[in-house]
Amino acid sequence: MKNRVCYLLIQTDESIQAAAIVRDEFPAQNPNFRVITLKEPAKAEMIPFLDLEHRGEKTNKRPARIARVQVVLGETANKFVELWVDLDQTCILQKQELLGKHPYIDSDYMQAVEKACMQDPNVQQHIANLQLPANACVIVEAWAYATDGLNDMSKRITMGWFYMRLVDDADANYYAYPLDLCAEVSEELKVTKIYRLPSGPDDRIYEPRPDDPIHEEPKPFDRRKIHGAETEYSPGLRPSPRTSTKPYQVIQPEGPSFTTHGNFVEWEKWTMHIGFNYREGLTLHDVRYDNRSLFYRISLAEMFVPYCDPRTPYPRKAAFDLGNDGAGINANNLRLGCDCLGHIKYFDGWHTTITGDPVKLPNVVCCHEQDDGILWKHTNFRTQNAVVTRSRILVLQTIITVSNYEYIFAFHFGQDASIHYEVRATGILSTTPIDIGDKCPYGTIVAPGVLASYHQHLFSLRIDPSLDGHNNSLQVEETRPMPVNSYNTSGVGFMTHSSIIDHERGLDLNFKKNRTFKIINENVINPVTGTPVGFKLLPAYSQMLLAHPESYHGKRSEFGAHAVWVTRYNDEEYFPSGRHTMQSSGGEGIATAIQNRSWTEESSVRNKDIVVWHTFGSTHNPRIEDWPVMPSEKMVVGLKPANFFMGNPGLDVAVSTQEQNQSVLVEGDDSKSKSSCCKLESLGFL
Amino acid sequence: MKNRVCYLLIQTDESIQAAAIVRDEFPAQNPNFRVITLKEPAKAEMIPFLDLEHRGEKTNKRPARIARVQVVLGETANKFVELWVDLDQTCILQKQELLGKHPYIDSDYMQAVEKACMQDPNVQQHIANLQLPANACVIVEAWAYATDGLNDMSKRITMGWFYMRLVDDADANYYAYPLDLCAEVSEELKVTKIYRLPSGPDDRIYEPRPDDPIHEEPKPFDRRKIHGAETEYSPGLRPSPRTSTKPYQVIQPEGPSFTTHGNFVEWEKWTMHIGFNYREGLTLHDVRYDNRSLFYRISLAEMFVPYCDPRTPYPRKAAFDLGNDGAGINANNLRLGCDCLGHIKYFDGWHTTITGDPVKLPNVVCCHEQDDGILWKHTNFRTQNAVVTRSRILVLQTIITVSNYEYIFAFHFGQDASIHYEVRATGILSTTPIDIGDKCPYGTIVAPGVLASYHQHLFSLRIDPSLDGHNNSLQVEETRPMPVNSYNTSGVGFMTHSSIIDHERGLDLNFKKNRTFKIINENVINPVTGTPVGFKLLPAYSQMLLAHPESYHGKRSEFGAHAVWVTRYNDEEYFPSGRHTMQSSGGEGIATAIQNRSWTEESSVRNKDIVVWHTFGSTHNPRIEDWPVMPSEKMVVGLKPANFFMGNPGLDVAVSTQEQNQSVLVEGDDSKSKSSCCKLESLGFL
Repeated sequence: MKNRVCYLLIQTDESIQAAAIVRDEFPAQNPNFRVITLKEPAKAEMIPFLDLEHRGEKTNKRPARIARVQVVLGETANKFVELWVDLDQTCILQKQELLGKHPYIDSDYMQAVEKACMQDPNVQQHIANLQLPANACVIVEAWAYATDGLNDMSKRITMGWFYMRLVDDADANYYAYPLDLCAEVSEELKVTKIYRLPSGPDDRIYEPRPDDPIHEEPKPFDRRKIHGAETEYSPGLRPSPRTSTKPYQVIQPEGPSFTTHGNFVEWEKWTMHIGFNYREGLTLHDVRYDNRSLFYRISLAEMFVPYCDPRTPYPRKAAFDLGNDGAGINANNLRLGCDCLGHIKYFDGWHTTITGDPVKLPNVVCCHEQDDGILWKHTNFRTQNAVVTRSRILVLQTIITVSNYEYIFAFHFGQDASIHYEVRATGILSTTPIDIGDKCPYGTIVAPGVLASYHQHLFSLRIDPSLDGHNNSLQVEETRPMPVNSYNTSGVGFMTHSSIIDHERGLDLNFKKNRTFKIINENVINPVTGTPVGFKLLPAYSQMLLAHPESYHGKRSEFGAHAVWVTRYNDEEYFPSGRHTMQSSGGEGIATAIQNRSWTEESSVRNKDIVVWHTFGSTHNPRIEDWPVMPSEKMVVGLKPANFFMGNPGLDVAVSTQEQNQSVLVEGDDSKSKSSCCKLESLGFL
Repeated sequence: MKNRVCYLLIQTDESIQAAAIVRDEFPAQNPNFRVITLKEPAKAEMIPFLDLEHRGEKTNKRPARIARVQVVLGETANKFVELWVDLDQTCILQKQELLGKHPYIDSDYMQAVEKACMQDPNVQQHIANLQLPANACVIVEAWAYATDGLNDMSKRITMGWFYMRLVDDADANYYAYPLDLCAEVSEELKVTKIYRLPSGPDDRIYEPRPDDPIHEEPKPFDRRKIHGAETEYSPGLRPSPRTSTKPYQVIQPEGPSFTTHGNFVEWEKWTMHIGFNYREGLTLHDVRYDNRSLFYRISLAEMFVPYCDPRTPYPRKAAFDLGNDGAGINANNLRLGCDCLGHIKYFDGWHTTITGDPVKLPNVVCCHEQDDGILWKHTNFRTQNAVVTRSRILVLQTIITVSNYEYIFAFHFGQDASIHYEVRATGILSTTPIDIGDKCPYGTIVAPGVLASYHQHLFSLRIDPSLDGHNNSLQVEETRPMPVNSYNTSGVGFMTHSSIIDHERGLDLNFKKNRTFKIINENVINPVTGTPVGFKLLPAYSQMLLAHPESYHGKRSEFGAHAVWVTRYNDEEYFPSGRHTMQSSGGEGIATAIQNRSWTEESSVRNKDIVVWHTFGSTHNPRIEDWPVMPSEKMVVGLKPANFFMGNPGLDVAVSTQEQNQSVLVEGDDSKSKSSCCKLESLGFL
């Protein structure tokens, strides 16, 4: 039963058991269950367990099964408690009230916020003043409140952003009609403020008081803004699609090259366990190639999406799409033939209802193979013999929807022992209103009256390496020109210079110096190269956080300050902006953690159990081509062996043959012509 | 007959005609034909011609047909002449001796150099001193001489680098046995110098004089260096390959979505002409989307590969793989089912023999489609309706072999009107000897006794834009944080700042400022965004040339100093290191051309017919995983519309359906289990 251990996922029976124990703990308080997940086993327990497993030995001592449960107690939903439930001993190990913290977004509550907005008389009056077309259906989109220092963050506050649709179709693109209105809603579902959204550089705020004239100058909806099918993406609202794209199918006559046992995946010398949780979504564990340990765990750890517009209330638009929303909860149910091509294996995830019952998230991860062009080729120019192999990759993909946006996350495993992590951003831009004829320095006008604000997407990829063991180091290598001297009279010489990072810190990229980050194991020397075995990071070059470091955005998303971070492994440190990002005030992130440990033994990272975090993303200044639905914007991060193996790990991939690949020759319309091209005489102009 | 004009390629009958005219010009001199190609029509002639063609109008006035012919005259091959032959008037328009220039590499001559090396008694004595194994077969690889100031460059000099193979198979990897020997060969095929290659930091040079003891300390071949199959890539010399990779085929039941007429390609709203010449290989012309003009011409214009080792004679290793070798001449004959998958259309190229006869280069370009994952997706979280389209791309690919290395060049056209240019480097590392036990700061030991030197690959992609017309501009945009002030009290604001380049120059990348290069047409304003229509460059972030700017490498490859260059279009300016790179001494490149024009009207590039050149590549410090044959190393450059269209150009792509895509569901071994995962109880450790 090698490698069938589901040590990463809570089982449904465990989830039921944990809920029962927690219900017993709070018999009168009707807990609202936010999280029931496995507290992943302590690494100190896992290492000997995995070692035995990989040696094929049996063990009776598996790591303890502990559930991490988060509940909200009480009607006013202000007592937020985390419990660690020992599932072996059926007892509570730890219980802690998370004072001042808020759980991730509760979609039931968000729907209640939307309803509260629409039922508020002041909101209704504002909508009336907008003089919308008779067929307008107003839609409220509830967003978590990004801390801006203007309210007490110990209470949950939600922002309602208003849109409408004019077509009687629930899939009409209401983002095409951002309304000049915004509401602030209290924990108790009261509308506490209404904003008219700014059009010029001034801020306008209206507090709803009984004697307040709602509006001095009503700003009726501008009829020039009525859009057509050009703002729709739903096929029912679009003209017939182009018919020029002919079908394209992937056939695998002998089936896929991968096998799965539970959440264990085996493919082309790779083995790994797939994990899934409400927050990170897809996670990878115990990743090995040819039975050599590479990575203990890889996951997307956080994503921050701040908008650029400094006018009130836009600084409140800044989403932690993992911490606030959850990449697991928001994962799409992937559909055969749509989200992947070829032979597809799906994995389900599990979550919990507010009453603590397990709920299945079906098909949240898909696993399939892709052809990836040429893996390697050489033609001996003396014999003209060409040897070419095609590259096959294994793709593990998950797709999430966070309100308007979609993110497609895919790990690509290569036969050359490389891993690439590809992120595609797609979906719909978050829009705000702009008056016809106005200009605005904070966004692109993608349709008349529709401003798509500039914003950033900053991702944190958490890489917990275990290259030939758990004590690894981070090496920084640069390539620098040699000075012109007696060793370098020609002036063409260059060399590499490297250093190993001693203490926890953040570091920056520099392509001008070919700065390369390598994770190495100093205890294992490659016998041929004479250097430590390693993997190098192929970073995505990205602008870091633009918000001021002392702004709330800056303090809340510390990981956005540097592209590469190295920390000592800690069983409770998974999230570079802290575990609780909802309305956080900062100081809970990776930089603070490092600072708190600085110059203690715990901050030493050389030849230690380390974690490397890569911050990347995009400053997304929208193009009109991103409207009404964005073509995928790709970002790719890679991990490649660097003197880890004894040669090209894909050297033994079979050469490519027509017998296997069954390609089809296409003749052009002039294929029978002897000329290299069409004949000039036949072109009619001679 | 719209779009069937082969204005880019010389026809075989034209080539024969040009050769005859040139032979008549030199009746007694037996010209060695190096080049017969079309001198591409002057743009001033082409523009009105293309305009008529795109309006569907007939014209009797097509651009003049002119051949560019280069010949070498005389036995000693030192008179190098270029002729422009008017094929309509059958006369010579221009004839110029190219004093001090050398033609690109003559493979017949290089074979003669190899032979001369092996026949030289001193070389033979050196080889004898190496005491090679009895079955050794010595191989000489002739390389063009990179200028190092140590010889008169008006004469052709060639370097012979020595290897051997121990296996009686012509496809054995002789790069696994670099020998401690190197020869310098004169134009007249005499070995003029012999070098023992350095092992430590010292340089050692031996001039073969009659009284010279060949070698004080013979350095016999070290028997520890005998390698096994781990250094071989040829299937005949390798153990059986892995069998885990199951077949994977692409089926297009209705055939491909592209059509071709001669070298004209039409696919998914894209149209373009494919060109091909001995030097650049694949070129693209008159690239349009939805019948809007985008690019007049796109081509790889140069590639420079300098090695880092400053020890004599290694500074001579620096190849202009286009200027010296030719991407057209060295293009592979692509084979069905090996180099691409699916429905493949091949294009042939044509070149000339030394006697002036046309010679076909078969299947040098392949054209096919690929699935490229998801083009766009959105799930309406309110209705849970997901709309997903798959991305199809058109790939135009050519692969070249330059001695040890392979380069795979592919243009990818997207349904979202993007173009990506993907370069993959593969093949075999250029190796030099190193004594067992020695270390060396200039490379990686990839096998015992085999050093793979650090080197750079610098590519120059020439982009001649014609966005809605020929007068375009280069705009540089940065995204910068706003100062914290009364407009930005929260400190989260950021904005873009842009400027338009006025004069020809080189520019650098800066991801920290999100510096974005846009080619725009200031005369055409997008009616929605209110900004000029444009395309943005997605650069490949790369270290620029490491050699000192005043070194020969630096002076010869001026384009390597900056990542982006903008110049005024000039009918004769195609090559950023000059037209003749063989043994060039510098001062013929893009920087010199700009300097020569600086501050004249001709250096103005705002709203003019401009060319944008992107320098990118890699500093390749080999890994052992690149041995004995390199897994493809990808570099990608993109061009994407930026407020050019009125919305997502791929919005009308049909949604993805299982009916079309015919994917296959894979059940895991536990697919019948009701659990989310395998059951803990069944794992044997409870």
